[in-house]
Amino acid sequence: MSFTVFDVAAALKAEVFGDGDIVITGAAEPASAGPDDLALAMDPKYAEGLALGAARAAILWDGADWQTLGLEAALVVPRPRFAMSGLTALMDPGPEIAPGIHASAVVDPSAEIGDGAAIGPFVVIGAGVRIGRGARIASHVSIAEGSVIGADALIHAGVRIGARVEIGDRFICQPGAVIGADGFSFVTPEKSRVEEARASLGAETAAVNASWTRIYSIGSVQIGDDVEIGANSTIDRGTIRATSIGDRTKLDNLVHLGHNVSVGEDTLLCGQVGIAGSTKIGDRVVLGGQVGVSDNIFVGDDVVAGGATKIMSKVPAGRVMLGYPAMKMEQYLEAGRNWRRLPRMMDDVRALKKAVLSDDKDD
Amino acid sequence: MSFTVFDVAAALKAEVFGDGDIVITGAAEPASAGPDDLALAMDPKYAEGLALGAARAAILWDGADWQTLGLEAALVVPRPRFAMSGLTALMDPGPEIAPGIHASAVVDPSAEIGDGAAIGPFVVIGAGVRIGRGARIASHVSIAEGSVIGADALIHAGVRIGARVEIGDRFICQPGAVIGADGFSFVTPEKSRVEEARASLGAETAAVNASWTRIYSIGSVQIGDDVEIGANSTIDRGTIRATSIGDRTKLDNLVHLGHNVSVGEDTLLCGQVGIAGSTKIGDRVVLGGQVGVSDNIFVGDDVVAGGATKIMSKVPAGRVMLGYPAMKMEQYLEAGRNWRRLPRMMDDVRALKKAVLSDDKDD
Amino acid sequence: MSFTVFDVAAALKAEVFGDGDIVITGAAEPASAGPDDLALAMDPKYAEGLALGAARAAILWDGADWQTLGLEAALVVPRPRFAMSGLTALMDPGPEIAPGIHASAVVDPSAEIGDGAAIGPFVVIGAGVRIGRGARIASHVSIAEGSVIGADALIHAGVRIGARVEIGDRFICQPGAVIGADGFSFVTPEKSRVEEARASLGAETAAVNASWTRIYSIGSVQIGDDVEIGANSTIDRGTIRATSIGDRTKLDNLVHLGHNVSVGEDTLLCGQVGIAGSTKIGDRVVLGGQVGVSDNIFVGDDVVAGGATKIMSKVPAGRVMLGYPAMKMEQYLEAGRNWRRLPRMMDDVRALKKAVLSDDKDD
Repeated sequence: MSFTVFDVAAALKAEVFGDGDIVITGAAEPASAGPDDLALAMDPKYAEGLALGAARAAILWDGADWQTLGLEAALVVPRPRFAMSGLTALMDPGPEIAPGIHASAVVDPSAEIGDGAAIGPFVVIGAGVRIGRGARIASHVSIAEGSVIGADALIHAGVRIGARVEIGDRFICQPGAVIGADGFSFVTPEKSRVEEARASLGAETAAVNASWTRIYSIGSVQIGDDVEIGANSTIDRGTIRATSIGDRTKLDNLVHLGHNVSVGEDTLLCGQVGIAGSTKIGDRVVLGGQVGVSDNIFVGDDVVAGGATKIMSKVPAGRVMLGYPAMKMEQYLEAGRNWRRLPRMMDDVRALKKAVLSDDKDD
Repeated sequence: MSFTVFDVAAALKAEVFGDGDIVITGAAEPASAGPDDLALAMDPKYAEGLALGAARAAILWDGADWQTLGLEAALVVPRPRFAMSGLTALMDPGPEIAPGIHASAVVDPSAEIGDGAAIGPFVVIGAGVRIGRGARIASHVSIAEGSVIGADALIHAGVRIGARVEIGDRFICQPGAVIGADGFSFVTPEKSRVEEARASLGAETAAVNASWTRIYSIGSVQIGDDVEIGANSTIDRGTIRATSIGDRTKLDNLVHLGHNVSVGEDTLLCGQVGIAGSTKIGDRVVLGGQVGVSDNIFVGDDVVAGGATKIMSKVPAGRVMLGYPAMKMEQYLEAGRNWRRLPRMMDDVRALKKAVLSDDKDD
Repeated sequence: MSFTVFDVAAALKAEVFGDGDIVITGAAEPASAGPDDLALAMDPKYAEGLALGAARAAILWDGADWQTLGLEAALVVPRPRFAMSGLTALMDPGPEIAPGIHASAVVDPSAEIGDGAAIGPFVVIGAGVRIGRGARIASHVSIAEGSVIGADALIHAGVRIGARVEIGDRFICQPGAVIGADGFSFVTPEKSRVEEARASLGAETAAVNASWTRIYSIGSVQIGDDVEIGANSTIDRGTIRATSIGDRTKLDNLVHLGHNVSVGEDTLLCGQVGIAGSTKIGDRVVLGGQVGVSDNIFVGDDVVAGGATKIMSKVPAGRVMLGYPAMKMEQYLEAGRNWRRLPRMMDDVRALKKAVLSDDKDD
């Protein structure tokens, strides 16, 4: 790949200074940039790096003087972080998947594969599957009977899509993700100890009942348009209705969605998030890495939860949460302050007891 | 698939009201049920849903009046949650895996495959493997040399079973699970900083020793009958003895069992649970999602731990645990109450200091 | 495999007592050892086990009297835990991967495969890939275009290595690991609610902005020599620079490294650890199971964090950390003590109020 500085400027709607005809073949951090790299120096802290590297062209922070920085060409963009989107989209070569269906792929004759699809080696596609036009499916993927995938999907190596899953357009799925595994749902003939513990809030239960009987997952998974699923994430099918993910929602790596979970639109679930069965997550929610959400609860629209927050009960819309158990961020910060004051208060109480009670038996 | 209401009633041992000859082809939640769906309305809250949907037959809550609900047939069951087990087992079509061994599978000539086995495309089965009768093995599974799997296994796509693993009958394994990876066990020629930190309970250690040398896992994995393993879960082999899982125990998705771990019978480990090396989990234990258990400890029979509980030391049988670090649920709830009272107590102490010491320098 | 006691002694630099010509074919715990097993009894607590088992030879604790223990041969080693390394290395048969390239493998003609490589069934190797001599690559592995892997790699079944990844010598990768998935990086045209929440420390934000636009990962992954990656772990590629792992660092199962993360040398990351994007982990760090580290921070050299520690801000070199949020271990232990004293202090304050204020309205 190679681009002129003018090409990049057009893609980013950026202003060009200097020689826009310089050809670049890649992007790099300023200090490690070679002469054909576009240096990414959107902050004044990178000035030193530019001097160390060999870039002739750079994207600069607003107000930078490109000439004294020793550059031959410069781009300035209004919101640098957003410019990264356009720049990386331009420069990403994408995975190499040869056009057509690889000779080794096992595609059921009843499957419908859209125009322009590229299907890699050792892919298995089941009966009645429908895959939209322009799909790119890397090696070792399996898509089981009756599933439907929209246009322009990019499914990386080793993804497992179970039976009767429905997915919208422009789906991106990282390697090893499993969509449509069976739910984890077991029931006992009589009330179980877990049901009792929940009802009694923790009294020890004498009764023992663990004849776990399987509830099968006859529901499926429904995924909207423009969804992305991370590497080795797992999404269980629903018991009766479908587990669902709304349009434009993105899941990071190793995320777990239990059976019947519903995730809204425009939501981000970061690495290792786990959502237990039948919980409903709203629209525009952001859950940081390792957040856990209990089963059968509701997390409202626009909720933001920091890393490792453990959400054990319903969260109203718009809250910013942190902690285990989850609390509003203000409460979490107050709790931390109180915590740090506690040793001093303990000293105070000891002094008060001495003064008042003349009877300090505290250790 | 299609069933009469009488068929369903026989499977569930349910009482039938109305026209038991109505044919149903699926199950659905009341509001979205079509005329050929059996509506699942085991609670009075679903009455409204029944009116919105088009179901002619439903499973109803005890005491419901099926006729005023507009139904033509109804089933009543004593424990509705348990009825879900029989109903979904009846209606689950199961995965489509063609009978026989797919032409593309690579099966070592010394492997023994039981009668009636169905083995999918691109499966690899190593030397000396024995697989019981009636096994269903989906695409892309690998089973390494010397492993033994009992009768009627259902192994989903992309599962990895390492060498010399032994698994009982009726095994169910969701996609992408890894059974028999090497344990994570490294040792230094001299005492390591981790050993020192544990011994000294946290003093900073000046000595630096991190020449990690690998301890190989020459043990294996032994799994009992009627065990289920979730999608992308990982179970390491033992160092000398086998990592083991008892009969009827179920693991959810993304669960991690370290080397030498022993899990008892009838135990449930929910999504993203992690058990560190050489720990022993008893029988009939239930660990909620994201629970972590430290290495080399013992969690007794019948212990229940809520979501995200971090178990750092031994737990006696029968306890209900929550929190980080794990405490008895009563303690956890008391801790929460004390926590909420703390700001008020801090005010009290401030007032007391003013009254008694006339010396309130508190901020 | 079979060895004489003398063979084992030579490998472990151990002292031999009794008949060093006894042939052993395996290792076992004392109580379950057969006559051809070497019993591992490095602690006096195993004396009883030796009596129960049938071993003729054992590795014993320092000072043990092998003759009264009924053995015919014994080995004594200075640091028993370290001896496990040599012993298991000697006895591990390793995975069976037939020499040469399996007929079913799809290897791009432009790929260079080193001498002595063993490549299993259904492996896919892309254009321009270079694999060092002596590599062992098990079934179903995919290695995408332009990746480079050093000498003597052992890559287990179903591993996914993306494009342009660079890996050093003696790499060990457990099944199902994904190296080089796309980073989880999205940006909004305007400032997002997450950026606002971070800036305002938690005030609820009215503005809603969730037009997530993808930042592509045009960086790669660079891995040093002697690195091991656990089963189903996921390592994302960098945005511009490479995500990197230093020499001799080991990752356990289900570990997640976000984009741009840098992990130093000789570091251990235990099961289910998650490191968010752009964070830097030093050398000789040990993070226990389920530890989480926030994005864009620095964890210094020689830091040790106990299981489930949640590191939300920078940690100086040499600290031993625990808790959520992470604190120095001494603080964590003090916090626990204070916590347990809190109910008694609350009683004290109540008594003081009664005595001083004659106005006890506390509940």
